[in-house]
Amino acid sequence: MVGVYVSNSSRKEPHYQEMEEAGEIRERPTEVVVHKVEAPPLRTSLSKMKLRLKETFFPDDPFRCFEGQPLKTKWALAAKYLFPILGWAPNYSLSLFKSDFISGLTIASLAIPQGISYAKLANLPPIIGLYSSFVPPLVYAVLGSSRDLAVGPVSIASLIMGSMLRQAVNPSADPLLFLQLAFTSTFFAGLFQASLGIFRLGFIIDFLSKATLVGFMAGAAIIVSLQQLKSLLGIVHFTNQMGLVPVMSSIFHRTNEWSWQTVLMGICFLVFLLLARHISLKRPKLFWVTAGAPLACVILSTLLVFLFKAQNHGISIIGKLKCGLNHPSWDKLLFDATYLGVVMKTGLVTGIISLTEGVAVGRTFASMKDYQVDGNKEMMAIGLMNIVGSCTSCYVTTGAFSRSAVNHNAGCKTAMSNIVMAITVMVTLLFLMPLFVYTPNVVLSAIIIAAVAGLIDIPAAYHIWKMDKIDFVVCLCAFLGVIFISVQDGLAIAVGISICRILLQTTRPKIVVLGNIRGTEIYRDLQQYKEARRIRGFLILAVEAPINFANTIYLKERVRRCIEEENVVEHEQAALRFVILDLSAVFTIDTSGIASLIELKKSMEKRDLELLFINPNGEVMEKLQRANNVHNFLGVDSLYLTIGEAVLSLSSLAKVSP
Amino acid sequence: MVGVYVSNSSRKEPHYQEMEEAGEIRERPTEVVVHKVEAPPLRTSLSKMKLRLKETFFPDDPFRCFEGQPLKTKWALAAKYLFPILGWAPNYSLSLFKSDFISGLTIASLAIPQGISYAKLANLPPIIGLYSSFVPPLVYAVLGSSRDLAVGPVSIASLIMGSMLRQAVNPSADPLLFLQLAFTSTFFAGLFQASLGIFRLGFIIDFLSKATLVGFMAGAAIIVSLQQLKSLLGIVHFTNQMGLVPVMSSIFHRTNEWSWQTVLMGICFLVFLLLARHISLKRPKLFWVTAGAPLACVILSTLLVFLFKAQNHGISIIGKLKCGLNHPSWDKLLFDATYLGVVMKTGLVTGIISLTEGVAVGRTFASMKDYQVDGNKEMMAIGLMNIVGSCTSCYVTTGAFSRSAVNHNAGCKTAMSNIVMAITVMVTLLFLMPLFVYTPNVVLSAIIIAAVAGLIDIPAAYHIWKMDKIDFVVCLCAFLGVIFISVQDGLAIAVGISICRILLQTTRPKIVVLGNIRGTEIYRDLQQYKEARRIRGFLILAVEAPINFANTIYLKERVRRCIEEENVVEHEQAALRFVILDLSAVFTIDTSGIASLIELKKSMEKRDLELLFINPNGEVMEKLQRANNVHNFLGVDSLYLTIGEAVLSLSSLAKVSP
Repeated sequence: MVGVYVSNSSRKEPHYQEMEEAGEIRERPTEVVVHKVEAPPLRTSLSKMKLRLKETFFPDDPFRCFEGQPLKTKWALAAKYLFPILGWAPNYSLSLFKSDFISGLTIASLAIPQGISYAKLANLPPIIGLYSSFVPPLVYAVLGSSRDLAVGPVSIASLIMGSMLRQAVNPSADPLLFLQLAFTSTFFAGLFQASLGIFRLGFIIDFLSKATLVGFMAGAAIIVSLQQLKSLLGIVHFTNQMGLVPVMSSIFHRTNEWSWQTVLMGICFLVFLLLARHISLKRPKLFWVTAGAPLACVILSTLLVFLFKAQNHGISIIGKLKCGLNHPSWDKLLFDATYLGVVMKTGLVTGIISLTEGVAVGRTFASMKDYQVDGNKEMMAIGLMNIVGSCTSCYVTTGAFSRSAVNHNAGCKTAMSNIVMAITVMVTLLFLMPLFVYTPNVVLSAIIIAAVAGLIDIPAAYHIWKMDKIDFVVCLCAFLGVIFISVQDGLAIAVGISICRILLQTTRPKIVVLGNIRGTEIYRDLQQYKEARRIRGFLILAVEAPINFANTIYLKERVRRCIEEENVVEHEQAALRFVILDLSAVFTIDTSGIASLIELKKSMEKRDLELLFINPNGEVMEKLQRANNVHNFLGVDSLYLTIGEAVLSLSSLAKVSP
Repeated sequence: MVGVYVSNSSRKEPHYQEMEEAGEIRERPTEVVVHKVEAPPLRTSLSKMKLRLKETFFPDDPFRCFEGQPLKTKWALAAKYLFPILGWAPNYSLSLFKSDFISGLTIASLAIPQGISYAKLANLPPIIGLYSSFVPPLVYAVLGSSRDLAVGPVSIASLIMGSMLRQAVNPSADPLLFLQLAFTSTFFAGLFQASLGIFRLGFIIDFLSKATLVGFMAGAAIIVSLQQLKSLLGIVHFTNQMGLVPVMSSIFHRTNEWSWQTVLMGICFLVFLLLARHISLKRPKLFWVTAGAPLACVILSTLLVFLFKAQNHGISIIGKLKCGLNHPSWDKLLFDATYLGVVMKTGLVTGIISLTEGVAVGRTFASMKDYQVDGNKEMMAIGLMNIVGSCTSCYVTTGAFSRSAVNHNAGCKTAMSNIVMAITVMVTLLFLMPLFVYTPNVVLSAIIIAAVAGLIDIPAAYHIWKMDKIDFVVCLCAFLGVIFISVQDGLAIAVGISICRILLQTTRPKIVVLGNIRGTEIYRDLQQYKEARRIRGFLILAVEAPINFANTIYLKERVRRCIEEENVVEHEQAALRFVILDLSAVFTIDTSGIASLIELKKSMEKRDLELLFINPNGEVMEKLQRANNVHNFLGVDSLYLTIGEAVLSLSSLAKVSP
C-alpha cells in the first residue's frame, strides 16, 4: 500500500497559489499528500543472483518457447534450435528454390575470384580460398539462422591472419608450415567463436562500437590496398611490413621494378570494377553488375594474357592449380609449443574480427526483413563452421558484408543460396581449375582493391563527427593506429579508448541542479529549461549514474561545490535549508556508495542542512534500509517519492516551525 | 518558453475521473496540458569540450578563490596553495605547539620501532627505516595540506617493495645493489605520484574500492605476519617466497630450527602489544598505551637480552647501527636498462598503494575535523616527498593509518607534529643508535604483527557481505589472490573484477516497466510498487543507464521482449498501441545509441506501435535533434516532458480517432 500521510500544515508554496485560486481541489494542495517510498518485495540473495545471471547471459530468453510444451515438442524445438535448416527445409518449395538458385549463382560468380584473391592476401595458395568457399557455406546452411548471410573468406580476417602468422614463419620459405599454422589458427578461431556462443558471452563483441569499426575498417582497407600495390605495379621485391610508411618507401625505392604493362592492365580493370560498383550503388536493381564484374574481369584478363602471351611481357600469372575437392587437413593441425602462442593469438584476433562482421551482417539483414537472429546461436554456427573448415583445408571464413548484400539484392530466400554457391564452387574445383592458369595476379589485386574500397565509409565518419566528437576521436585513433602501428594494435587502442570512456563516465557522473517549472510539479535541469526556477531554501540535485567506488569522492566534492555555488546565488548563507538528492536515475549502488551517502548526510548536518533522498529504486532502497538498520541515519522525512511532494511537505513544515 | 499546446479532446483517462468529480480544476485535466521538451541553449563543441575537461580534471575547482583577486593576492594564494605551511605558520601559537609537541613525541615513540621493523620487512638495513622517518616528515610538513597525517614507512608498501625487488636481486647476496634498486623504485614511485597529482589524474586511485582494499589489506596483513614467523620462531633457513603454502611448508619442514627462547619472548611481547592495542580501541583516551607499547617492548627486550646475554642463547639481535643522519643518495639511483623494468614496476605498484593509503587517511581525518584536503595537491606533496626521500637515503613513505590515528587522538593541531617527530628521530639517529645493538629481532616481528593485525577488518568484510554480494566477491578475490598468488596479482585481480563489474553494468542496463500510482501522475516500477498499475494500451519503460555501443543490442532485444511479455499479459495483441521510453535517467548517448533508437522507432512502426521518448536531457535532446535533421524519425508526438502528459494526451487522441 502507498502510505499517505498528511502534514499538519495548511500553508502552501507560492507556485501552488494559482491552482488554489482556480477553485477547490481535492486533497492537494489543501493538505500535502506524501507517498511513501517502498522497498521491493523481499527476495533471497540467491533468487536475485539468479535473476541477474539470467539477465546477463540470457537476456533474449531463448528457451521461452520451450515452456509448457510436451516432451516431444521440446525435442523437436531443440533440434530446430540447433539445426535451423529443420525449420525451413520441410516447407521448401520450388518457387523459393528459383530465387535461391539465382542468388546462389550470383554470389558464386563473386565468390570464386574473391576467394582466390583473399587467399593470396593471407599468403596462402589461391586454391585454399576456393576450398574455403565450398565446405563452410554447406556447414552454415545447416547451422546458421540468417537467411541472407553469404559465407566465405573475407578481406580483413585474411589480411590479419597473413600478417600475424608472417611474424612467426616466412610463407615463401616454409609454405607448408605456414599453411599448418593457418589451419591451426582457424581451428582456434572457431573454437573461440563457438565457446563465446556456448557460454553466452556474445556481448563481448558489442565492445567493438560502430565508431571503432568505421575507423578500423577504413584503416584496414587502406593497408589491404597498399599491399596490392605490389601486384598492381608489378614490383618483385616488396617489403614484408604492413604499415603505411614502409610500404610507401618500398614502392618509391623500387620504381625501376614498375612494369608499365601491369600498371596499365591493373588501372583499366580497377576503373572498370569501381564503375561497376558505382552503378550498383546508384541502382540496387543492377546488383548483378557488381556481382558479375569480378568474374568478367578474370575471364577477360585471362583471355588477354592467353592471346598476347603477356606472361612473357612482365605480367605475373597465377600458374597451375590442382583440380579436385578439399583434402582432409586435421592431420595438419599443429599444436606445437613453439607456435602455440602466435597461433592462439591469431585465432583470437581473426575470430573476434570475423565474428563481429558475421554477426553484424546477420543482424542487419534480419532487421531489414524483420526476422530474429540469435547472436549467441550464430556464434556457435560460425565457430563450428570454422572448426570443420580447419579440418577440411579451409581457412577462417564468415559472413561477408559485400557478398551478403549482393545475395540479399539478388533475392535470396533461405540459406539454400549458400548451398547453390558451394555446389558451383565444387564444379569449378572439379573441372574448371585449368582455366585459371593464365589469370594475371594484377586483376586479383584490382578485385581486392575494388572490394575493400567499400569499407572506407566517409559519410559514416562524417556522421559520427557531427553526432559525437569523442566517438570521432575513437574512430580516428582506430584508423591512425591501424595505418601507422599495426592492424591488431589499432583495434586494441580503439577498444581501450572506448572502455576508458565508459569508465570515465562512471567516474564523473552528471549531477544537475533542478528547478521547478512554474505551475507544475515538474522539476527539470535549470540549464536546459530556462523557465525552471530555483526554490528558495532548497538545492535540488539529480544524480544521473550508478553510485559506486569510482565516483563517491567526486559525488561528495560535487555536492559540496553545488552548495557553495548555491550560497553565492542566494547571497544569504542562512537561506539554504534542504539539499534534495534525486536518486531516480541511480540504478545501482555499492557499499562505497551507501557509505558516501551516509557521510554526506552527516556532513550536511554539521552545516545545519538537511539531506533528502528522492525516489530510490528497489535495489538502492533495499540497501539504504539495510544500512539504516546499522547506522540509523535516515530520519522520518529523509525519503520522498517525488521532488514535488518533498518540497511541498518540507516548505509547509518549515513555515510552521521557523 | 515552455510551449503549451492543448489537444482538441475533452475525454479523460479513468484515473483522472476522481479529480474531476472533486470539482472544477483549472486547465488540467479538462484539457490536456503538454509541455515541450527543450534543447539546451546552443554552445559550441569547443566550449562543451572545455566544460567536460574541467569537470573531469578540475571537479573541485581549486582555482575558484583566485578569481577576481588582484595580482598580489593571486601570488600569495598560489604560494599558499603550493606550500600549505604558509597558511598556518604565520598564525602559529604556543598553545598549538603544546598540542603538536605532545602528539609529535607520541608518534615518534611509535615511529622509531616501526621504522626499524618495516625496513627489515622490505629487506633493507634497519637504519633506512629511521632515515625514512626523518626527511619525508619534514618535506610533508611544508607541502602537505592534512593536519593529521603522520608520515613514515608503512607495512604494505614495504612488503611489496621487498618482495618485488627480491625477484630481481637477492638482498643478502648483493645488499648494495638491492639498496640502490630500493632508492630508484622510491624515486619512480614519487615521480609517478607527483605526476598523477600534476596531471590531475588522482581519480585513478578511486578505482581501488573499499571492498578491494578490505580484502587486499587483510591478505597483505596475513602475508606480512607469515613472514614474521621466521623471526618469531627463530628459523634460520626460511623460504624466499611469500605465499601461504610455501611459507607454511617451510615452517613445518624446519621444526628443528625453532628456538624456544625466541618463541617464548615473541609470544609474550605479542600478547602485550595486542592487549595494549585492545585497550586503546576500547578507550580512545588511552591512545598513549598503543603508542608507547612498541617502544616499551623495545626497551624492555633490549634490557633483557643485555642482562641475560640472550644473544648467546639463540636469540638474534639487530647488531651495530651507525650513528649519524641521512647520507645523500642521489648518486645511488640506478637507471640501468637491466633493472629499469622491475624498478619502474615496483615504483608504480608501491606508489599507487602508498598513495591510496596516504590520500584515504588524509581524507578520513579531514572529514572528521571538517576541513578540506585536495586529493591532487596531496599527491603532489607525497610524490615530492618521495622524490626528495629517494635522494636522501629514504625508501617509500606515506601517511600511515595507525600512526595518523594516534596523532589525531594525541591532539595534533598542525603538520608541526611531523616536525617534532622528525627532530626526535634525528636525536635518536645522532645519539641513541648504540642503544639498539641488543634489540632482538623477535620483538620487531611482534611489533609488525601487532601493527598489521589492525588491517584485518572482519566487521567491514561482514558489512560488505550484508550490503552487496558482488562487492564481497571482489573483496574475497583480492584476499585469496594476495594469499595464494601474490600481493600484486591479488590487487590486479580485484581491480580487474571491479572494472568488469562497471562494464557489465553498462552492458546490461536496468530497464524497468513502469505503472501509474492511482490518483497521481506518478509512474513507478511495477515490481517495487504494488499499487502501480499498467495502463491499457501503453507499455512504459524506463532506461536507467547511458545508451552506448556496449548496450544497444541488449536494449533492442530487451524492449522487444518486454513487448512480447506485455502482449501475453494483455491477452489481446491489438491492445498495445504505444511504447513509452522514459529517458530521464539516460545521461549520455553515443552515435550507436542514437542509431539504435532510430532503428527501434522504425521496427515499432512495422508492428503498428508508436515509440515515444520522455524527458531526454540536454545532451540526448541535442543529439536526437541532430539525428532527426538527417533521418526525420521524430513525429510531432514523439517527445514529451513527463510520462503523465504523454499518457493523457495520447489516450485522449486515441479515443478521438479509433
